[in-house]
Amino acid sequence: MSLLKLGIPKGSLQEATIDLLARAGWKVTISSRSYVPTIDDTEMECLLVRAQEMARYVESGALDAGITGHDWVVETKANVVELAELVYAKQRLSRVKWVLAVPEDSPIREPKDLAGKVIATEVVGITQEYLARHGVKSRVEFSWGATEVKVPQLADAIVEVTETGSSLRANRLRILDTVLESATVFIMNQKAAADAARREKAESIVLMLQGAIAAATKVGLMLNVKREDLATVLSVLPALKNPTISALSDSDWVAVNTIIEESVVRQILPKLKAAKAQGIVEYPLNKIVL
Amino acid sequence: MSLLKLGIPKGSLQEATIDLLARAGWKVTISSRSYVPTIDDTEMECLLVRAQEMARYVESGALDAGITGHDWVVETKANVVELAELVYAKQRLSRVKWVLAVPEDSPIREPKDLAGKVIATEVVGITQEYLARHGVKSRVEFSWGATEVKVPQLADAIVEVTETGSSLRANRLRILDTVLESATVFIMNQKAAADAARREKAESIVLMLQGAIAAATKVGLMLNVKREDLATVLSVLPALKNPTISALSDSDWVAVNTIIEESVVRQILPKLKAAKAQGIVEYPLNKIVL
Amino acid sequence: MSLLKLGIPKGSLQEATIDLLARAGWKVTISSRSYVPTIDDTEMECLLVRAQEMARYVESGALDAGITGHDWVVETKANVVELAELVYAKQRLSRVKWVLAVPEDSPIREPKDLAGKVIATEVVGITQEYLARHGVKSRVEFSWGATEVKVPQLADAIVEVTETGSSLRANRLRILDTVLESATVFIMNQKAAADAARREKAESIVLMLQGAIAAATKVGLMLNVKREDLATVLSVLPALKNPTISALSDSDWVAVNTIIEESVVRQILPKLKAAKAQGIVEYPLNKIVL
Amino acid sequence: MSLLKLGIPKGSLQEATIDLLARAGWKVTISSRSYVPTIDDTEMECLLVRAQEMARYVESGALDAGITGHDWVVETKANVVELAELVYAKQRLSRVKWVLAVPEDSPIREPKDLAGKVIATEVVGITQEYLARHGVKSRVEFSWGATEVKVPQLADAIVEVTETGSSLRANRLRILDTVLESATVFIMNQKAAADAARREKAESIVLMLQGAIAAATKVGLMLNVKREDLATVLSVLPALKNPTISALSDSDWVAVNTIIEESVVRQILPKLKAAKAQGIVEYPLNKIVL
Amino acid sequence: MSLLKLGIPKGSLQEATIDLLARAGWKVTISSRSYVPTIDDTEMECLLVRAQEMARYVESGALDAGITGHDWVVETKANVVELAELVYAKQRLSRVKWVLAVPEDSPIREPKDLAGKVIATEVVGITQEYLARHGVKSRVEFSWGATEVKVPQLADAIVEVTETGSSLRANRLRILDTVLESATVFIMNQKAAADAARREKAESIVLMLQGAIAAATKVGLMLNVKREDLATVLSVLPALKNPTISALSDSDWVAVNTIIEESVVRQILPKLKAAKAQGIVEYPLNKIVL
Amino acid sequence: MSLLKLGIPKGSLQEATIDLLARAGWKVTISSRSYVPTIDDTEMECLLVRAQEMARYVESGALDAGITGHDWVVETKANVVELAELVYAKQRLSRVKWVLAVPEDSPIREPKDLAGKVIATEVVGITQEYLARHGVKSRVEFSWGATEVKVPQLADAIVEVTETGSSLRANRLRILDTVLESATVFIMNQKAAADAARREKAESIVLMLQGAIAAATKVGLMLNVKREDLATVLSVLPALKNPTISALSDSDWVAVNTIIEESVVRQILPKLKAAKAQGIVEYPLNKIVL
Repeated sequence: MSLLKLGIPKGSLQEATIDLLARAGWKVTISSRSYVPTIDDTEMECLLVRAQEMARYVESGALDAGITGHDWVVETKANVVELAELVYAKQRLSRVKWVLAVPEDSPIREPKDLAGKVIATEVVGITQEYLARHGVKSRVEFSWGATEVKVPQLADAIVEVTETGSSLRANRLRILDTVLESATVFIMNQKAAADAARREKAESIVLMLQGAIAAATKVGLMLNVKREDLATVLSVLPALKNPTISALSDSDWVAVNTIIEESVVRQILPKLKAAKAQGIVEYPLNKIVL
Repeated sequence: MSLLKLGIPKGSLQEATIDLLARAGWKVTISSRSYVPTIDDTEMECLLVRAQEMARYVESGALDAGITGHDWVVETKANVVELAELVYAKQRLSRVKWVLAVPEDSPIREPKDLAGKVIATEVVGITQEYLARHGVKSRVEFSWGATEVKVPQLADAIVEVTETGSSLRANRLRILDTVLESATVFIMNQKAAADAARREKAESIVLMLQGAIAAATKVGLMLNVKREDLATVLSVLPALKNPTISALSDSDWVAVNTIIEESVVRQILPKLKAAKAQGIVEYPLNKIVL
Repeated sequence: MSLLKLGIPKGSLQEATIDLLARAGWKVTISSRSYVPTIDDTEMECLLVRAQEMARYVESGALDAGITGHDWVVETKANVVELAELVYAKQRLSRVKWVLAVPEDSPIREPKDLAGKVIATEVVGITQEYLARHGVKSRVEFSWGATEVKVPQLADAIVEVTETGSSLRANRLRILDTVLESATVFIMNQKAAADAARREKAESIVLMLQGAIAAATKVGLMLNVKREDLATVLSVLPALKNPTISALSDSDWVAVNTIIEESVVRQILPKLKAAKAQGIVEYPLNKIVL
Repeated sequence: MSLLKLGIPKGSLQEATIDLLARAGWKVTISSRSYVPTIDDTEMECLLVRAQEMARYVESGALDAGITGHDWVVETKANVVELAELVYAKQRLSRVKWVLAVPEDSPIREPKDLAGKVIATEVVGITQEYLARHGVKSRVEFSWGATEVKVPQLADAIVEVTETGSSLRANRLRILDTVLESATVFIMNQKAAADAARREKAESIVLMLQGAIAAATKVGLMLNVKREDLATVLSVLPALKNPTISALSDSDWVAVNTIIEESVVRQILPKLKAAKAQGIVEYPLNKIVL
Repeated sequence: MSLLKLGIPKGSLQEATIDLLARAGWKVTISSRSYVPTIDDTEMECLLVRAQEMARYVESGALDAGITGHDWVVETKANVVELAELVYAKQRLSRVKWVLAVPEDSPIREPKDLAGKVIATEVVGITQEYLARHGVKSRVEFSWGATEVKVPQLADAIVEVTETGSSLRANRLRILDTVLESATVFIMNQKAAADAARREKAESIVLMLQGAIAAATKVGLMLNVKREDLATVLSVLPALKNPTISALSDSDWVAVNTIIEESVVRQILPKLKAAKAQGIVEYPLNKIVL
Repeated sequence: MSLLKLGIPKGSLQEATIDLLARAGWKVTISSRSYVPTIDDTEMECLLVRAQEMARYVESGALDAGITGHDWVVETKANVVELAELVYAKQRLSRVKWVLAVPEDSPIREPKDLAGKVIATEVVGITQEYLARHGVKSRVEFSWGATEVKVPQLADAIVEVTETGSSLRANRLRILDTVLESATVFIMNQKAAADAARREKAESIVLMLQGAIAAATKVGLMLNVKREDLATVLSVLPALKNPTISALSDSDWVAVNTIIEESVVRQILPKLKAAKAQGIVEYPLNKIVL
């Protein structure tokens, strides 16, 4: 029998999650004939569950743990433990916002203008709580999707999720306010979290997931430099971690090996060259635990 | 300004509906950049709306009329007029059933065994009404989809829609009972239905849709036959409509032209040949109003 | 040796042209290994040629005839005979316009504002002639495509082809004027047009193409009606062509068979029913020569 | 229990066969989860079987009847009844040839040059019989496919199937001789063919298949003509079948309705027009039994 | 002229083989117009040959060497040298089994129950030898594919290839026995294997292929550790190869660089962290020769 | 405001350029709704421009810099600075040739035979200059594409671009002469090149692009070797760059880390093994600045 029952989010987060698990060291295979994926770890069992329903099923104990959005934990008011955020800058696991939006030319300017209006959203609970906070009374209607095209014909405003806001702008909507920020989270139910074996297993999974996430935006950098130029070279490198400096056969030279953010390489490389570093090589990484 | 605002169901019924409208004489174009389709009829305006939300928006007057499932009219308890059923035997507009199903090896045998159990479904209202009718108390949970794979891990039973039951059998589920039968319907709100101009427009649309539906499963059949063999030939033809019998130049012969179900042609053709009919030709039809 | 060398337009008109030829009775097969299509007519030979280059190669005699746009005949100033227009309302062979367009917020309001400005276009000759007509001097630059995204960064105005204007509006462009209207045409060079055999062949091809084009938007309509109601029924039918009225065995009834525009069926059918027509059947057509 | 077990050829003939059955009046559905198709006829049962194996399984009685190539009946030397040829000019059910081919520059010029050579083919039996007929001894090797690329590296000659020879020419092969002509056939085993009920069912299927095949390359033609021009018009029409001539209300005119090969329409239409026919209409057909 | 003629398996092994060759350092390009791939090595020439036919053509000398399955070497009884196994755990080059299988509910329980039964298989020779070994007489029929759906309608049992057995289970088959285990092998004919130059070339290819295969499931691991914690860290690392331990500028610390199976990283990483390793980095590898 | 406006070539070079920019450290995102890509560098702004039009728009100052082919700089006679060649051996950014070609069986043998003939080409200017150089007068016609199929029907010769000549050979064309060699280049206009800030930015982009290009065909190689075998091992390694030799804990051994061309690994690895190198590992690289 498996130690940990893990829910994997079906739908928009699915591919990114399975890809992340693969990079973390677990191969999840989804057969077209079944919704129960197989995983190459005898201590685990997986189930594909909608992100929206995940927290509910983790809370009830049908699952020990799950990967879902913080927003759905809030919406379902599920009593679960958020073990870690899994903010993955590449592709789809990034941080998102639920925003209140109206048509560009709507007379609605601030939350209080919503009084008596119709708001369409997939997160009825979150929206009602937001309105309560602002002391406004509106009619909040559950939307089965394509919420951004419901205004102005079917609703006066919407509460919709967005990463960059570009889809909203393309639909000529104006953002009024941020209702909730959210990220992908790893959750457990209270009972499983209190059980030493399951807790330890969950934490080692999180360690590996975070190691893979950290590696996705970083690279290794190796270079050789004369001892007399070492200080200059080191001053150029960011302080993410102390570089590994090793002796070479030729005692006038040392080798420097370090890990840096991929996005800063384009700024640092010209400076390293100017600082007389030689044989500069950037190489890819799989996982990082600093 | 247009006379009639019509809701077209977005999603699984969308393609079949737009195809049916095309066969009935209206060309609806859906741009990838907009969710407001264009229609080549200045008296009409269209909006793509989820089947689940259609009745609600027709009731509120945001739309005059809509095409949706009878099931969603019931689920949303919307106060609308069902002008006509649009049962279209080909492809996707056929009659469906919402059934109560459990895993093949479940101990649940009849509705009363559901007491205290968890039922997952997209139609919470219909399910609760069914349970009330049977005097059973269960926990009914809203399911965002993929309901058939929720048992037994996440629920004890489901209420799910099915056309032939084959998807349920493939998931090793056993059908316990039919909760609701449903078909695609053309709905109007009370106010629009009471307005002569909009009512007439809606009725002419329904006439054309039904003309196209009727033609989809029928074909025309033409043949020549000697007057002396006419009676035998006519006795073979089904009585769907009186055949048109016309005189030919050669007065010993007549031409017979009729409309029959495509599915019976394979039984009738050998008999017509045996009855000495000649030059038998089957041809396709676009619309039929008998 | 073949009688007629016909150029078929490669690219955006290709599929619609081959489809039209198929409906007219010629099967053209394009192998992926060769740009010389085969045609099932020993009197013809085909060559795939860009619409832009067609008139030039017909003029030079490399081809006897070709199908291309009237616009490219004008642009290349080729001395060819336009035998017929092939305006095909369905799909892609419709009438188009070359329009002068500027960004929505451009200060350019009329042709004279173009003086000294840069205009990007695929039809440099047509544009220069247009400017000459308006007595304006601008710099006209040849554009290799994607012309509509060149303003305002790379040009001040464009001359671009459009069917409905929707692509221009989507790029936030404002149409200033129509520079040229164009349709698909069947062209021959002077020498081939003067040759009796090739002229006759070309005319029979045009007859069939126009027969297929005419059929694409029309349908057949059959119905039975009592002699006493015939006049009412006939008054409802449009006067496209005299309907064929034939005697039935039952001498109180006649059969009416006619051809009408598909787009008016939805208006006529309810009226025919009201006029007591029975067994109304709409059927599809392949070709029409009235 | 079903009356007739029919084998449907899996692979290259599959789509064309299922399409032909649909046009003949039977809907065959192939689920991705099963190789046993369903058919909407309670008197029949289907099985997908490779064309190569069909005759063997019909002979053994595992199937009552099957659709396959005549070539595979010969190759497997199966003792079956060929009820009818199903030569379907459109798409894929056309007549084919197994030809003996060598590289363009091969010294092999006639069958006797094959002595001692290696021949690769999928039809080892047919090839050996051909060689025996010509008194030549060669080594015939079974080829699992892609036979045309085996020469000259892996074989000296091949026996390969071809429709038009174009694939052979593209591989720079020269055809030496035709080994066997073949067409799609409907076969039964001896026992089933001798059984009245199954024989009758098989023959009515063949009647419908042939009715659909006949209609695929033919069209209906309707026209009106004055009685005084009738003879001229009739002289233009091919003698496929006597046209149906019917009286019109206006007794000076008659209506002519006939069936002709689609490929001759383009020659006949200009002549009909010249002969003063009016309202010429070509319409599509589903099935023809003359 | 090239030194070595290598057969590359066409079909199911093709993509994995070409990918493996690429990882080993050879770029093979397959043009859609030719079945003779190009390879970027003037000492080699390639030919695409079915895995089933490979051993036969290597034996005959048409090829010097080839990559195919051990099963087809056995089935064709070809006299060739198996230079090496190429077991590639990722994707498709894994070890497979030919198994004897019957329907779940078949009365056949052991090999002797097969007496007088029909067995369908692609490997007739291997199957007959297996039956001979068990002293059983059955009718073995060659199957052109889709063997697993032949029971029970067309055969009583099958001998079919399987990797995990899941496809057999999905078809409700029960595995009775393993008939033959097989893996991808690199073969040469006797003459080429005895020729020093070709043998050396073949062995260097095998060395590179195995280097790429070894790297596919392994990763590099770098970390820094204090000398006092080195023993603990080393005790955690598996003994695949002695880790490289190098001096750092700071003499209290050493850097450890090692190669381990990717599948054990998720177990080792938490332990390395507990053992005070720092800056742990996992990086990908292309080839490994230990 | 951004520092540098960079033109990215739209069309055949687009994907390779965006991929190269990604490997160099810049993420360019092309939305389907806009032709203005976004780039994750606040100092830059991008525009998608056809390679053919790039030099013209860089020269005019609409862009500061651009990536295009040297051929189009020559064809448009634009006055721009070519900062660097970007020859990228993988995929599409390789060096190409514009060649003069005629049908295999054409009597044209050398440039002077072109007198009075028709030449079709996309590079009219380059072709005319070539003809002037050879003192030949021909008619050069602009071709909108598919130039290689224009001979012999529409032209006598062509000037067309080719990488390997295989497409020309497939069309049975014979290459007569090379008209121009070309590679992808990074260009700036004179004014931007003279501006220190923009010049420095452009040079750092070029440095990164070349670092990514250099890494694409190279790999890292690590190995351990006894001090006594070091000289032998070093003699085997190519002299691309001095290898980094570092001391190991076990002072009898050293670690060697070096960068070599991927294409020579298959020759070197067997020699390294013979030279007693151990733990040989090849690993991938992202960027190299030696």
